[in-house]
Parts: sequence; structure tokens; C-alpha cells
Amino acid sequence: MAVTMKDVARRAGVSVATVSYALRGGQYVSEEVAANIRAAVEELGYATNQSARYLRSGRTGVIAVGVHELDIPYFYSRFAQHMVDRIENAGYKALVARSGWNASSVRESLERLSDQPSDGIIVHAGGVPSSELKRLGKGRQVVLIDDFSARPGLDTIIVPGEQGIRMATEHLLDRGCRDIAMVGVPYMPKSRLGQRVSEVMRLRGYVTALERSGIEYRRDYLYDGEWNMDVGREIAHRIVADGMPYDGIVCATDSLAVGLVRGFADRGVRVPDAVRIVGFDGISLDDYVVPSITTVAVDMDDLADKAVGMLISRIEGDYDGAPRHEEGRLKLCVRESSR
Amino acid sequence: MAVTMKDVARRAGVSVATVSYALRGGQYVSEEVAANIRAAVEELGYATNQSARYLRSGRTGVIAVGVHELDIPYFYSRFAQHMVDRIENAGYKALVARSGWNASSVRESLERLSDQPSDGIIVHAGGVPSSELKRLGKGRQVVLIDDFSARPGLDTIIVPGEQGIRMATEHLLDRGCRDIAMVGVPYMPKSRLGQRVSEVMRLRGYVTALERSGIEYRRDYLYDGEWNMDVGREIAHRIVADGMPYDGIVCATDSLAVGLVRGFADRGVRVPDAVRIVGFDGISLDDYVVPSITTVAVDMDDLADKAVGMLISRIEGDYDGAPRHEEGRLKLCVRESSR
Repeated sequence: MAVTMKDVARRAGVSVATVSYALRGGQYVSEEVAANIRAAVEELGYATNQSARYLRSGRTGVIAVGVHELDIPYFYSRFAQHMVDRIENAGYKALVARSGWNASSVRESLERLSDQPSDGIIVHAGGVPSSELKRLGKGRQVVLIDDFSARPGLDTIIVPGEQGIRMATEHLLDRGCRDIAMVGVPYMPKSRLGQRVSEVMRLRGYVTALERSGIEYRRDYLYDGEWNMDVGREIAHRIVADGMPYDGIVCATDSLAVGLVRGFADRGVRVPDAVRIVGFDGISLDDYVVPSITTVAVDMDDLADKAVGMLISRIEGDYDGAPRHEEGRLKLCVRESSR
Repeated sequence: MAVTMKDVARRAGVSVATVSYALRGGQYVSEEVAANIRAAVEELGYATNQSARYLRSGRTGVIAVGVHELDIPYFYSRFAQHMVDRIENAGYKALVARSGWNASSVRESLERLSDQPSDGIIVHAGGVPSSELKRLGKGRQVVLIDDFSARPGLDTIIVPGEQGIRMATEHLLDRGCRDIAMVGVPYMPKSRLGQRVSEVMRLRGYVTALERSGIEYRRDYLYDGEWNMDVGREIAHRIVADGMPYDGIVCATDSLAVGLVRGFADRGVRVPDAVRIVGFDGISLDDYVVPSITTVAVDMDDLADKAVGMLISRIEGDYDGAPRHEEGRLKLCVRESSR
């Protein structure tokens, strides 16, 4: 079995992130740690430049990744960075493109990526049928992110938004909240909550948690908007103008929660004293804003491992079976915003 | 002259960012705005799919970008997003790669990018001589980010860190601060402050501002560390443990400032009451943390415009002269952390 970055990290007694950072030339690694990593690399025979093996195999050694956006919401930039770590860890090179948000921009980004030499592509499904995405991949192996269709035709990883928002809502209920708003989703009548679309699935998580506690699902408790900080801030201002009728707020994403907390600070509303807030994603920012933000975090290391692992197993011929379907692990992280 | 996204934005009465977001399929544009943008696109004959022109020219229509990291510090993910906006605005496709931090990782990323079909590359210089970067580009046009050498051999854009940190330090002096620490740079004796390296140039900006005000440059007022939030937080804890001897702190980057503010909150130290803080970069986060962070902001729209504009003028044969050198514009943004 090939020596991985994980083996090097274990031998050197440091984290995989530190090894990755040091090997790509990070400047702030202490001399002692750098020496330990160099020793582990030599001892284990870890090959940092593995391009020779692609020359023999006829492969390119490149994996291409398409993510919605490169910066805000920070979830995607972080996820891209995690996938690039895994790709380089496995001895491949990574290229990243922005895929945008809807079917036509996803189609276009996949066409663009498949014009480049690569062995495989990881890209958001964006609601495009997997049969079409397969064709656009022009013979390359493709792993999808968030293909919510009932019978995916390609390997896919899923950010389990429905389950995450249900956990977030249940946390507020456990804290005694009863008037719980949700931010970042449009209103849908209950009859249409079966749609397999990201926002609707998150809304369903909220509705399910409320109903299990015998609390009414109210249209006027929903605030729709793009998943970013600007929108969260503006919604906080509106909620204060409306007389602050809530004791808890669930946000579809952490970016919204960061904006909401700031928007309440603008108006002198104290979180969690006046209202408790929970987000979803697990961006590193959560721990850095004041108050820090309670969230249901997706284990991104695990999710990136799964995406890259599935793709490489196809590229290297270790797996040739039916499409696989892997969900990210979730964890409730309680911080100041819901204490 | 080709119709640009800017023309469409002006006609539709919205920002370039909104047009860009709408055209790549953003879901949260109102029906009215979307209709205005569609009308402007048709009226002006703006071509969103311009690949036909590359088929005729023999070019690929692809521009590749290499940035230090894809997520934290958020400066680079934001800068990448801005450049991708400009590249797509000009009718090209964008590919992004992580270039890491030092000479060997920059070399490797440029080699990788030049294995891909593209018309040009924008990449961090990373201290590698431009003659070597030119060779690694294999005949492609190359624009550098932060080539600080005295006589750059390629077009380059510069983030003016020295001037920015001088402005940040002067702002604290104007506010009456006299015991001003700097975070994110190593100590250098004055005799070595001439080095053209990012950290040293930022340190020089701080030293210059102090000396102009007749304030001594003190080794024990410097806190070295990687430019991220974790490090900033840990340094705040150390400063509090040392008895908080400062009335002002200049941070080499905004990520450090965000971490510092959070670290002081952990210890019950109030900003700006106990100490004023200024950062450098202008990441969007500055306005979202509590307290919001005063910074010297780089005009990233302008800088991305310059980088992409210089590259395309070479690709399309509109300019074939001596290497150009463009600096980003700076602006002091005073917020709560220094009031």
C-alpha cells in the first residue's frame, strides 16, 4: 500500500494539516517540526513528487473540482481547500473552477473542466440529471456533490441539510425556545415539502422538528434570502423592526448566522439573552465571532475524504461497481449564541 | 469595442457583481432585476458564450490563476473570486490552483498550470525570479502577483503592504496611541529592513510611521506568527498574560485582527476601550465581527481589473511593450475597533 500523508503525520507526531502545510512550503513551521516531518518522509519513503507514475500509466495525474463559489459563503472555499488537500495527499494535482448555482452554470463548468486534461472531476450536481453529467464528463470519472435524486447514476456525496437543520431546531427546542423562526428558505406548503432541492430539504428538517414538538409551522416565521452575511444582517434589522417576536432562530447556513448576529448587535439586541441562534455548516468563523455561533457542523475532512476516495478508486480501477452514495457526518457544536 | 459586463450593469441599473451573479445562475435575483439584465444583454448584444471566437483564433479561451490558499486567510479566496469575475466578464474561462507559499510550491503550481491548455496565467511570484517563471510558463503570457524585485521582468500587480501598514500605524498615532505593538512579523534590526519580502516590507511601514512620530522601535513589541485567526487569538491571550502593555496594535493582516479581537473577548478585554486594533487587507469579515475592525483596505476590484486587464492585453496582442507594474489602491476604513 502506498505511503500516505497520514502515515507521515503519525510518524512525525503532528496533524495531517501540518504535514500538508509544511510540504507545500508553509513558512511558519518550527525548525523542530520541519525536521521531524523531513525525517518521517525519508524513513517511510513518502513520494511528494509522484508524477513519474502517471507517465507510465497514461493518466494525467490531475483531478478537477467545481464548487459553487470561491469565497462567500465560506463553506465552499473551505470545502475546496479540504478536497485539494486530499487530492494532493493522494499524489494528484488539483484544479478548481467555479460552477455557479444552477443547472446551466453547472453544465458550462463541467464542459469547461472536461476540456482540460484530467483523470476525474468532482462537481456540484446543480439539479442536472446524472446521465447528462456523465455525458458532459467525456469519459472521465465523475463524482457529484449533492445529487439529491432518488436514484443517482454516479457516485455522490451529500451534505445532509435536512438532518442538520432538524438537529439545529431540536437544539433550540431543548433550550426551551417555542417561537422559532427560520432564515434562508422560502415558504412552501406542507404538500410541497417532498421536493429534493437543497432549500426545501432544509425547510423540511425545521418543519419536522417543530411538528414532533407539537408546534405550529407558520409561514410568517420564514425569511427567504441568499445564503450570505449581508442578507443575514438585513434580516436581523427587519426582525427587530417587527418587534422581535422570536426566542430562537435557525439559519440555513452559518454565513447567515454570522450576519444575523452582527445585525442584532447593530440594533443593541443581545444574543443569546434576547434570542438564541443556531447555524448549519461548521465554518471556522463560527468560533471567531462574538458571540461565537452554535452550529450543526458537517465533518468536512470526512466528506472530502469520501469524495476524493471514491473518485480515485474509480480512476485507479479499484472499484467498478454500482454508484455509491455517502453522507457527511454531523455534529452539534454548542457555543455562546445559544447558551 | 466589445460589450462588457460593466456596460450591461450600467444599462440594467445594477452592480457588476449582480450581473455576474445573475448570468451564472444565481437564484436570489428578483424577477424585476433579472428581467432588466436580460433586456440589457439583448439590447447591447452582450455575448455570454463567446467560445466561438476562440475556435477562430486558435486560442483556448482559458486563463489560469494560482493563489496561495483557497480558504483562510480569506484574502486570497476573495481575490481569486474577484479575478474569476473579471476573467469571465472578459469572455474567458477561469481555472484556479493553489500555489502554496514558497518558491518550490510556486514553481510546482506554475508547472502544473502550464501543462493545461490556457492562454495565460496569473500567479504569485513567491520569490522566484521572473526569468525562471517566464520559462516555466512555456510560452504563455504570465502576470505576477507581488513580485517585489526592483526590476520585474514580467507584468506584475502589487499589494502595497508597506504603505498600508504605515497608514494603519499612523491612524493609531492619530488616535493618541503611543505604545503600539505589531502582530504577524518577525523582528528585524533596522539594518535589514531593506529586504523586499512581504513581511519585512510591512514591518518597515510600521517602523517608518513610529520614527516619524519620534517613537522608539522596540523588539519586544513584535509578535511573529502565521497570518491566520488561530494565531491572532493565541497572541491576544499572551498579550493579556503579559499585563496588556499596549494602547494600540497593528496587525499584518485582517485575519490576525479578527483572531485578536476574539482572543481579547475570551479574556474580558474590551476593544477599543482597553486597546485599539487596526488590520490590513479589507476582507468582508471586518464589517461583520463585533466590534467591527478598522482596516486599510486594498481595492480588490481595481487590483483584479489590473491583473486581468494586463494579461488580456498581452494575449490579444494589444500590448507588447516593457513589463508593467501596478499597485493596488488603499483606503483607510475606520470602524469600531479603533474608535
